Amino acid sequence: MNQKQMLRPATDAATTAAPLANFNTADAVEYLNTLPIAAAVDLLAALPLPRAVKLLEAPELQRAGELVATLPPARAAALLGLMADDRATDIVHELDQDERARLVPLIGAEARQVIQTLLSYPPDTAGALMTTEFVSVPANWTVGQTLQHIREVERTRETVYAIYVLDPASGQLRQVVTMRRLITGLPDESILDVAQVNAPVTVDVAMDQEEVAQLIRRHDLLAIPVVDAGMQMLGIVTVDDILDALIEESTEDAHKFGGMEALEKPYMQIGFLEMLRKRGGWLSVLFLGEMLTASAMQHYEDELARAVVLTLFIPLIMSSGGNSGSQATSLLIRSLALRELRLRDWWKVALRELPTGIVLGTILGSLAMVRIVIWQLGGLHDYGEHWLLLALTVAAALVGIVTFGSLSGSMLPFALKRLGFDPASASAPFVATLVDVTGLVIYFSIAASILHGTLL
Amino acid sequence: MNQKQMLRPATDAATTAAPLANFNTADAVEYLNTLPIAAAVDLLAALPLPRAVKLLEAPELQRAGELVATLPPARAAALLGLMADDRATDIVHELDQDERARLVPLIGAEARQVIQTLLSYPPDTAGALMTTEFVSVPANWTVGQTLQHIREVERTRETVYAIYVLDPASGQLRQVVTMRRLITGLPDESILDVAQVNAPVTVDVAMDQEEVAQLIRRHDLLAIPVVDAGMQMLGIVTVDDILDALIEESTEDAHKFGGMEALEKPYMQIGFLEMLRKRGGWLSVLFLGEMLTASAMQHYEDELARAVVLTLFIPLIMSSGGNSGSQATSLLIRSLALRELRLRDWWKVALRELPTGIVLGTILGSLAMVRIVIWQLGGLHDYGEHWLLLALTVAAALVGIVTFGSLSGSMLPFALKRLGFDPASASAPFVATLVDVTGLVIYFSIAASILHGTLL
Repeated sequence: MNQKQMLRPATDAATTAAPLANFNTADAVEYLNTLPIAAAVDLLAALPLPRAVKLLEAPELQRAGELVATLPPARAAALLGLMADDRATDIVHELDQDERARLVPLIGAEARQVIQTLLSYPPDTAGALMTTEFVSVPANWTVGQTLQHIREVERTRETVYAIYVLDPASGQLRQVVTMRRLITGLPDESILDVAQVNAPVTVDVAMDQEEVAQLIRRHDLLAIPVVDAGMQMLGIVTVDDILDALIEESTEDAHKFGGMEALEKPYMQIGFLEMLRKRGGWLSVLFLGEMLTASAMQHYEDELARAVVLTLFIPLIMSSGGNSGSQATSLLIRSLALRELRLRDWWKVALRELPTGIVLGTILGSLAMVRIVIWQLGGLHDYGEHWLLLALTVAAALVGIVTFGSLSGSMLPFALKRLGFDPASASAPFVATLVDVTGLVIYFSIAASILHGTLL
Repeated sequence: MNQKQMLRPATDAATTAAPLANFNTADAVEYLNTLPIAAAVDLLAALPLPRAVKLLEAPELQRAGELVATLPPARAAALLGLMADDRATDIVHELDQDERARLVPLIGAEARQVIQTLLSYPPDTAGALMTTEFVSVPANWTVGQTLQHIREVERTRETVYAIYVLDPASGQLRQVVTMRRLITGLPDESILDVAQVNAPVTVDVAMDQEEVAQLIRRHDLLAIPVVDAGMQMLGIVTVDDILDALIEESTEDAHKFGGMEALEKPYMQIGFLEMLRKRGGWLSVLFLGEMLTASAMQHYEDELARAVVLTLFIPLIMSSGGNSGSQATSLLIRSLALRELRLRDWWKVALRELPTGIVLGTILGSLAMVRIVIWQLGGLHDYGEHWLLLALTVAAALVGIVTFGSLSGSMLPFALKRLGFDPASASAPFVATLVDVTGLVIYFSIAASILHGTLL
């Protein structure tokens, strides 16, 4: 394929690239996404470099890693070297070890160093998200010099989020100037005269992206500078990068909460086997956990044989525990993600969930009572002579199980966070499984004590 | 309280406002959030107007509606009139009918009209999210005139996202100029010479905010113009508004997927009764739905009495249906939200979920088989003489239920969308309830046909 590429005459390349001539970047990306990989690679190889760079930089481009790995290596390295460093890093991230080893050494030294540094930051942190391309000027410059600098040196940059003013001696970040304020300044004024009065808001490379997003929102910024301990600027995280990151994270969290591994590609583009792996893994783990319910049921087999009527309410009772747990878990995953609550607040939450669970359980218990009474007295079903005791058992079990579900569902995200996991790994099915086994034990224990001497 | 406010001498107001003197806006907002409502109102009333406006505009300010409703009406109206129109609209949105009727007429005519227009757009649309404050210039202006305009007329605006170039005769949107390009232009050049070459990307007032976010991402914009059918600009949606909206929507969707009404406030700030209402409502609805499982079980009571061993696997089988359904639902809610799939693609998804469900069900069925065989042959539990048939029944039921769970879980978001609901209203507990009843019917039907003549 590469060879075929090389031998192809120049006119052919022009023909290949022709369909894209009238497309803007977004439409061209959409078109590329529909092509088979070989055709998309041909197109990327035939396009002028700056145009190909624009397409590869688009976050909507699918299979970017695959495309780069399939391109002639020299071309791929040239494209990676010209791209925005954060996006180039994302693409290198998608490559496997062999592909990286082959391509990265071919990238120009300067871009290569930046990419390698960015690769070293853990995913979902400010470091992994930042770009090292930003406009900075020394504090002894004037407004006029800064404008001239942006016009000439920074002319390839489409958007200037802000101008960062550095101490000329130490290189430390001192102030931030917005474009809006820059153009109000007189050419001879010092750049410091148009800077914002407050000290700049900065973040550390290791800060989690959700926290960076909160800061960008709180301070209404278009970009936030990332600094090291000595206030040297390492890069900026822009509001559009945060937007991309949060949309991706929302999707991942939704998948995880649904009880599966997060998919990294759109639904229709996941291979059948990959889909099975992402879903089958968790489904099997949950299934193995849920097998404990069979063990619990076996333990109570004698009671079940004596009082078959008890089994009628098992699905109802178990699902209520799972539902109340799922509510509490989804609430607390978000509260922890948004930093509304900290790890140390767990006991405040427990103190709220306890009465909440008791009241919710009492509501459901009353509904169950009403249902059994109506069915029995209305002649819809005969629950036997001890139907009132049965109703009491079901109601009491619901109070116990909903309380347990709310409590354990709310504590699970804290526990995961305490153990160093992402609280968002707590899924609705996971909570349901956790609550189901205990739910059965609660139900049969209550049944044993209320129905002892009558049904049991 | 208002009276007390009026009678208080000026020095007292200064004292009240003193704690905020050294805070930046974000910290001041955090401080306000910790105060009792009366103290926070006193503070807002004592601060200079522009400072109070800044605080009310912060999206992190909690209880903004309550604060505005408690302030002296004249002061509240003045603040609303000076605020960014989109944020003022958000706050008016939080007021009840009486409070709106009292306050809105006091707002200055111009701001009032804008707020009333913005209030009329449905929530979560471009119209509801947009601000009407943007910089526009006629196409016959020069770069110099535009710069002068931004310096003088638009001096209160902290951020200029872009400059919108309108046709001087028709007022239609013609081009967009970024700040970056504006400053590269020569003062005498036409503004059109520094405009972007492509036609501007615009959205309709009715467009859903997720779709607006996708467009802003695709085209790498800081703001997107909202236009009517005649290309007249109505406002802009900025990337920071989209960020706020998406974070809120993620939280709402997470709560909904957890099976409850979305909370609008942080966990610890919701009153106990409101929390009960938001959770108890859905929990009761799901409970009533789940009562059908009791009816289904009653229907099979004879079979249950004859073969108690069948009940042992009910929780295991039902939870697997719920889990596979929850996976499929979470996958498709996100795919629909991100516009990866359209309503008309439902059959493609169904054609994928069918084999996926069958394979996943077969995996779980095999696990169940292995478990029963090991327990039986290992002497851990005696499932009776027909244990092999029982194992077959459980395995076959799992294939059926997991397939049904995957299919119905994936179709539910499409069905909700088709009916005009938000696909994100499909929750894990909702799917589980849907699958549970059918799951029982599948299990007992398979049991009846496999075990007929032996256990049943």
